[in-house]
Amino acid sequence: MKIYSSILPAEALQEDVKKEFPQVSFEFHKGINEELFLNAEIFLTYGEDLTEELIYKADKLKWIMVMSAGLDRMPFEACKKRGILVTNVRGIHKIPMAEFTIGMMLQHVKQMRSLWTNEQAKAWERKLPMGELYGKTLLILGIGAIGGEVARLAKAFNMKTIGVNRSGREAEWADEIYTMDNYREVMPEADFIVSVMPSTNETKHFLDASDFEIMKDTAVLINIGRGDLVKDEVLIVALQEKKIAHAYLDVFYEEPLKESHPFWMMENVTVTPHISSLTKNYLPRSLEIFKHNLHTYIKKGSGYLNVIDMDRGY
Amino acid sequence: MKIYSSILPAEALQEDVKKEFPQVSFEFHKGINEELFLNAEIFLTYGEDLTEELIYKADKLKWIMVMSAGLDRMPFEACKKRGILVTNVRGIHKIPMAEFTIGMMLQHVKQMRSLWTNEQAKAWERKLPMGELYGKTLLILGIGAIGGEVARLAKAFNMKTIGVNRSGREAEWADEIYTMDNYREVMPEADFIVSVMPSTNETKHFLDASDFEIMKDTAVLINIGRGDLVKDEVLIVALQEKKIAHAYLDVFYEEPLKESHPFWMMENVTVTPHISSLTKNYLPRSLEIFKHNLHTYIKKGSGYLNVIDMDRGY
Repeated sequence: MKIYSSILPAEALQEDVKKEFPQVSFEFHKGINEELFLNAEIFLTYGEDLTEELIYKADKLKWIMVMSAGLDRMPFEACKKRGILVTNVRGIHKIPMAEFTIGMMLQHVKQMRSLWTNEQAKAWERKLPMGELYGKTLLILGIGAIGGEVARLAKAFNMKTIGVNRSGREAEWADEIYTMDNYREVMPEADFIVSVMPSTNETKHFLDASDFEIMKDTAVLINIGRGDLVKDEVLIVALQEKKIAHAYLDVFYEEPLKESHPFWMMENVTVTPHISSLTKNYLPRSLEIFKHNLHTYIKKGSGYLNVIDMDRGY
Repeated sequence: MKIYSSILPAEALQEDVKKEFPQVSFEFHKGINEELFLNAEIFLTYGEDLTEELIYKADKLKWIMVMSAGLDRMPFEACKKRGILVTNVRGIHKIPMAEFTIGMMLQHVKQMRSLWTNEQAKAWERKLPMGELYGKTLLILGIGAIGGEVARLAKAFNMKTIGVNRSGREAEWADEIYTMDNYREVMPEADFIVSVMPSTNETKHFLDASDFEIMKDTAVLINIGRGDLVKDEVLIVALQEKKIAHAYLDVFYEEPLKESHPFWMMENVTVTPHISSLTKNYLPRSLEIFKHNLHTYIKKGSGYLNVIDMDRGY
């Protein structure tokens, strides 16, 4: 059985996998290599290096393990026609992303940038308007696994948590739930608005100028979902007109964000490079799911984690 | 009944107190004014502006409300001889200080300074060795109300929490407890060492060079307790020799920290100006305790909050 990985994990992680599956032949080679790909029965990828053409050519391919949650660039149609199993690592993002989000919220209320600027100037300045998360209201757009984890931590900080989802179904750790139709009722209460929305037709440009009109002018937007949540020009105007206090943006329309993009230089915007889910634990956690699924594959079992429904695309 | 406050709260807070006690005459005047002081029956202070001499002269003084937890500069002997009631605001620090501590820990693992430096350079750099709090071990030196709140939040992040106290008595939210005699057994496990120790004879220079020898070289020290936890020269050498990764220092031997002090410029030291407990909620929360105690005083009741035992000094 030949497995090809276009992801190159650290040596120790490779050894760990090989040791657990001595009967399998592994090829770790960074980036797609057509020969290796066409010979493989199982393929490990971040999901950004496949084409329809490659899928149709790969006679031996049975299973694609996507070490990512975003599947926008996967040729599902071809996979479906060829009957290829696709699994991903949905679920491993919630811990790093929730920690990142709480970190950004604390950076904001604890005035960490001002603290740092003062430190660089050797200025002992105690008159900073520091705040607290305690008692603040958090609105989570797209409350699923990741948003739920953000809400769980927020409750530990004694915040009020409000979730928005499609169904209006209750979510653990959310004090209240609103739908995509009535969330505007509660928007004026939010101190923090965190978006974990994926990119779908429903969520594209979900926020528009009228949303920023009703937000608190002290509100903070944190977008760790998808860059098309709001049009750049709408967000820029809202921030220039100080409709909200700050935007922490980890995702963008176009990534990498161009050097000429105004976001980089705006005082009330913090740009991070789509990094909220990336920690040293990313590949180890992904490989745990892969190993579980590989055991299942070898045993011809049925306990696969995170099988993708090709019609829904997730 | 005359009350003099050497603290000047915002107008709205003053009005709020006056409205609740229309029968009382309030004087809010920033800094100590001897005439006002000598005429007062009740005195509100941060506890840093009193002398023995003043206490002996103040015939009418019955109660001092110290809007602070640190009482190092209070002339207790004189207060005791004069039979003056002293109360403080112990307990209001735990929320801001615990949030501050978790904020610093997240700043560290999420590489926020590198993120910011990259942003200023408009550099889309995703290869940062970001970590997580998840699964890390936190050692809390002096686990009381504040340390317990840090531990509570740390448990929400799925950290392992180890507390150190004098008695070895169990503490809520601490997975394990060690004493000041055997804490070295567990020091090598700690990823984060947070000190909330007050300054007493027992805790002065509690950490010495041998402690830094057994810490992980990736360990992070966060001191929000007192500046004499470790001698400056010991800490500087430990940091220069990279015995630990970083020190986040909010308290110092001498405050304000002198401009010439090496801490300001050390790469692996973050200096903050004794600010961990200061947020916009500080005075409102302090005044809640004061108002409770003033109601008690007026009713000649016995339900005072935070009465100081003059012999123990806390």
